[in-house]
Amino acid sequence: MPQSATVNRRIVLASRPTGAPAPEHFRLEETAVPVPGPGQFLLRADYLSLDPYMRGRMSDAPSYAAHVEIDAVMTGGTVSRVVASQHPDYREGDLVMAYTGWQDYALSDGTGATKLDKNMPRPSYALGLFGMPGFTAYAGLLDIGQPKEGETVVVAAATGAVGSVVGQIARLKGCRVVGIAGGAEKCRYAVEELGFDACIDHRGDDLPQQLRDACPKGIDVYFENVGGKVFEAVLPLLNVHARVPLCGLIAQYSGVAPNAALLSTLPRNLLTKRIRMQGFIIFDYYQRAGYFAEFFKEMSAWVAAGKIKYREDVVQGLENAPQAFMGLLEGKNFGKLVVQIA
Amino acid sequence: MPQSATVNRRIVLASRPTGAPAPEHFRLEETAVPVPGPGQFLLRADYLSLDPYMRGRMSDAPSYAAHVEIDAVMTGGTVSRVVASQHPDYREGDLVMAYTGWQDYALSDGTGATKLDKNMPRPSYALGLFGMPGFTAYAGLLDIGQPKEGETVVVAAATGAVGSVVGQIARLKGCRVVGIAGGAEKCRYAVEELGFDACIDHRGDDLPQQLRDACPKGIDVYFENVGGKVFEAVLPLLNVHARVPLCGLIAQYSGVAPNAALLSTLPRNLLTKRIRMQGFIIFDYYQRAGYFAEFFKEMSAWVAAGKIKYREDVVQGLENAPQAFMGLLEGKNFGKLVVQIA
Repeated sequence: MPQSATVNRRIVLASRPTGAPAPEHFRLEETAVPVPGPGQFLLRADYLSLDPYMRGRMSDAPSYAAHVEIDAVMTGGTVSRVVASQHPDYREGDLVMAYTGWQDYALSDGTGATKLDKNMPRPSYALGLFGMPGFTAYAGLLDIGQPKEGETVVVAAATGAVGSVVGQIARLKGCRVVGIAGGAEKCRYAVEELGFDACIDHRGDDLPQQLRDACPKGIDVYFENVGGKVFEAVLPLLNVHARVPLCGLIAQYSGVAPNAALLSTLPRNLLTKRIRMQGFIIFDYYQRAGYFAEFFKEMSAWVAAGKIKYREDVVQGLENAPQAFMGLLEGKNFGKLVVQIA
Repeated sequence: MPQSATVNRRIVLASRPTGAPAPEHFRLEETAVPVPGPGQFLLRADYLSLDPYMRGRMSDAPSYAAHVEIDAVMTGGTVSRVVASQHPDYREGDLVMAYTGWQDYALSDGTGATKLDKNMPRPSYALGLFGMPGFTAYAGLLDIGQPKEGETVVVAAATGAVGSVVGQIARLKGCRVVGIAGGAEKCRYAVEELGFDACIDHRGDDLPQQLRDACPKGIDVYFENVGGKVFEAVLPLLNVHARVPLCGLIAQYSGVAPNAALLSTLPRNLLTKRIRMQGFIIFDYYQRAGYFAEFFKEMSAWVAAGKIKYREDVVQGLENAPQAFMGLLEGKNFGKLVVQIA
């Protein structure tokens, strides 16, 4: 059934996956639409963002963020519309970015909600280029990666919500940018549309050699969000004083075992090459005063000038969110994955 | 035989060790004392510094520094005296710190040589507290570790040339300092003489539990120079936003295999706890304009005020350098290890 005025559809965590998530780990339910009390407003979702970090929330392993309880709604950011309000600052029709989860309706008292900036090119961009993924790319690359003109920057998941922005900003900083992506079409897009200097299809069996050929002067910045065999190919090519901002390990999220033999050489590599490897989560950067506003302003200027391109992969219907999310972890999306709910 | 005016004793690399070095990897030779040509001066060593990094130079594995060739003199820093000079800037009797290696005599044209500061408390201190080890402690702790008041700093090899200085500077910055050392006597010294808050004997079989007890608020800075089981005990205790300056892996230098199972969790730990792990070698910091002078000035003030204590372990005679060096890698020294040659 489509979105309705009287029923709240929601997708809950039915059970915890041990490896890759499967349909049985999710369950679609219907409940009543809640009614806002004093100081509250009711949000109806237009767009739901799907992101790799959600796999971590399905697990109860210790992490930086609370996990989703069994039978609770899957967490997630949405662009939603205020449809009823008893809150003085929010009026019917306001567009809001909020963490209302995988469902049609949610109440809010304003906590964690942000009204969409009037300069947002499209509402759904608040979930990607101008939201957490774009900010992740910006902060991780510039604050930790610190790319300098003429350096070589390698980015995995090169056409994804984060990687595509990392690569384009690095190009703007005068770097040689080498992407890694799954399939010839994505690689073509990275080079021809995003302006990367090269892009390597990791599905080929000669990733290490291809990467070596594409990085004749080694690698100065590796933006790490996938782990696995891509990191294996990158590690031997890292230059002295390389920086490795680390914001995700997608390949490990679904149970791909890390390569222990390779990782046993990691401290020795960090030492002899004086490499800085630093994990970060974007929530920390939201706490840094003025930093998101700085990002928003700079990104707006780049987009207005046609210097940053952005692609969305829009899936229709809340009921298709689980399948789309499973595909995301396998790299099946092409561009920032969002679910159009309304 | 002792140091002589007519014979140059030198210790060369006889063969490359695969694990711990042994006597057969070194050879004591005698050669003629060289004669300085125009623009050169002749140095005679008073003190030779022995440091863990030298184990790396005995190997021909790729590294940041050139290895010692077979039959070549072992590299090392010395405090030496000018005994003949055809160089306008160096006069007979000048005390110089230079990398003249494990031998009595060497020629220099001034490259890499530094006249000893007049304020040096003792000449041999130029090889330790006021030299590479002290500067390593200072730069690694302050530039990478960035300890803040009230944080917990853990340092291995706590009574060594680097560790003892790291811990004392961290105390000056208002941190809780927990050392790790080999044996009750060193631990007593770390607490009673150096002022550490606690020190754990890693020879006990319950290092992980003892460390946990000594760090009730977790670990914010771990100054890594040993690797091995100490790092295994530290890793689970690292706090969110911990910093790990990494300047050595002594336990691995002599063939202790890294724990692959543990290290396979390293990227995940760096990510979820947003840890910064950064390798460094002190030679890079010598290139930073004014930084060594800043260190020298600040350290001089601390020593003059009695705020930093320093202990040397002085071995007599060049011929005993190999045995002393083997002991160093096993933690048998107590304080900065130097060989008095003259």
